[in-house]
Amino acid sequence: MSHHPAAPAWQVTQWFNTEMPLDLVGLRGRVIALHAFQMLCPGCVLHGVPQAERLHQQFASDGVAVVGLHTVFEHHEAMQPVSLQAFLHEFRVTHPVGVDAATPGQRIPATMQAYGMQGTPTLVLIDRVGRIRRQHFGRLDDLTVGAEVMRLLCEKF
Amino acid sequence: MSHHPAAPAWQVTQWFNTEMPLDLVGLRGRVIALHAFQMLCPGCVLHGVPQAERLHQQFASDGVAVVGLHTVFEHHEAMQPVSLQAFLHEFRVTHPVGVDAATPGQRIPATMQAYGMQGTPTLVLIDRVGRIRRQHFGRLDDLTVGAEVMRLLCEKF
Amino acid sequence: MSHHPAAPAWQVTQWFNTEMPLDLVGLRGRVIALHAFQMLCPGCVLHGVPQAERLHQQFASDGVAVVGLHTVFEHHEAMQPVSLQAFLHEFRVTHPVGVDAATPGQRIPATMQAYGMQGTPTLVLIDRVGRIRRQHFGRLDDLTVGAEVMRLLCEKF
Amino acid sequence: MSHHPAAPAWQVTQWFNTEMPLDLVGLRGRVIALHAFQMLCPGCVLHGVPQAERLHQQFASDGVAVVGLHTVFEHHEAMQPVSLQAFLHEFRVTHPVGVDAATPGQRIPATMQAYGMQGTPTLVLIDRVGRIRRQHFGRLDDLTVGAEVMRLLCEKF
Repeated sequence: MSHHPAAPAWQVTQWFNTEMPLDLVGLRGRVIALHAFQMLCPGCVLHGVPQAERLHQQFASDGVAVVGLHTVFEHHEAMQPVSLQAFLHEFRVTHPVGVDAATPGQRIPATMQAYGMQGTPTLVLIDRVGRIRRQHFGRLDDLTVGAEVMRLLCEKF
Repeated sequence: MSHHPAAPAWQVTQWFNTEMPLDLVGLRGRVIALHAFQMLCPGCVLHGVPQAERLHQQFASDGVAVVGLHTVFEHHEAMQPVSLQAFLHEFRVTHPVGVDAATPGQRIPATMQAYGMQGTPTLVLIDRVGRIRRQHFGRLDDLTVGAEVMRLLCEKF
Repeated sequence: MSHHPAAPAWQVTQWFNTEMPLDLVGLRGRVIALHAFQMLCPGCVLHGVPQAERLHQQFASDGVAVVGLHTVFEHHEAMQPVSLQAFLHEFRVTHPVGVDAATPGQRIPATMQAYGMQGTPTLVLIDRVGRIRRQHFGRLDDLTVGAEVMRLLCEKF
Repeated sequence: MSHHPAAPAWQVTQWFNTEMPLDLVGLRGRVIALHAFQMLCPGCVLHGVPQAERLHQQFASDGVAVVGLHTVFEHHEAMQPVSLQAFLHEFRVTHPVGVDAATPGQRIPATMQAYGMQGTPTLVLIDRVGRIRRQHFGRLDDLTVGAEVMRLLCEKF
């Protein structure tokens, strides 16, 4: 009897930092931190992306899957995958990052739309059974993120 | 059948930011973050004390008791309670802080000795039944502290 | 009888944040802070570009010309002018920025070569008569930069 | 024909980090950065004192005398010289610091009164001939401080 919505499937056209495409079904049983960003969004570059990488470094071995999602909704030509790839390399991002699929004729890409995200950065915490437990647009401090991730890790199903 | 040591009782001669003296028995059932510091220790002033205050602001209502402990083991004359009181006021510390009892003829105060602390800042996390689950000398990042506090909050006894 | 080398001419293919192309001759009489950067170089994004912008905000009215130079020498496809333009917009860069001219068949662009720059960020301070007085690869702190710019401003010719 | 006021003499009861007492006459010919602070003022501890120390490290050999002045105007008992001494030691302050003389029956110490300072931190820049050229209460950024100190260094008399 859940009141938490199921996380929509990801629509990703290209992956970096992972040999295999990732999806919610394959990650079932793990806590997921989905981090939507744009490589030219200052709040993402200065805060969100480094926080996602810290999460990955500290919690990957505890069963947390940190997944970046490049949700370009402005300056599309400026942030093509070739630029994203250089960004990830130069900023030493090692967690998996997918490119959100463009929606023909629309500014907002497909996964961003499906989640109803308002902008970047957005952090989505998904529990072990695939439900959205937190979706936050903007900046969340590390104390809160650490605690919320652990709260989901503590849940047994 | 616990392998975690029971937290030693606190020996405190004066309290700030609380009307009643605090002790482990009275806080049983809550998770305790005990933060040992000195008001003239740069690592405490710049990192440990602000982190303890953030913990207090964010988790006090969730059942976490954040308790500062002023463990003066050097420059004793420089850090008397009258100076500590001004420090707490000026640095806007609102969580309870106790003054660790001096041990006659010794440099290290009583509670600091009982816990075997190596210096300041030291963070001690005590679980709902009064056991030390983590004791760390130095700097711990917020992601880790948030997660570890939540791990203890998730425990039921 | 100067021992300071004359600053080489700039070879720029496109300008942002200025209606007119800039060159050394036109800026004669002003102190110039030339800041070479790449939009995907972390040291530039986190330190050099914000410092150049602070210089511009604080010293433009005192006769200092702050000029950015986008010297792409790696990941060329990732940092085309369309991406640079979005970067300058999103990171609120208001000082003039030129795109260093590619050198056919070579990795290092033309102005970067002429100055013998070793990488990005590089700050070049040019005096009122067009001579290089300081060229620094890496990070320079604000105290030093403020002082060195003022030292050149104090010179009369 | 100067419009800049002469800097009032300092009234100091105790010095740290210098073998000889300092005064304006003895420093004539040098640019002086006088930094008034209190050891329990957060803006001083986090910003003003480290900036003064950076100034000292970078400009002492260029003819700048950086002088701290402990101007206690509140919590007097909390900030006695014995506490100041420990503070300077622990926070690795190496520039000379004087204790502003208490004024009997008044809260504000003597030098602070003579300069008409409004609070701490206050930075006073004094030129080579002993005149106040800048007096600022609050935070000044490093670019500005570096430039203003250099402007005074450039002056010849």
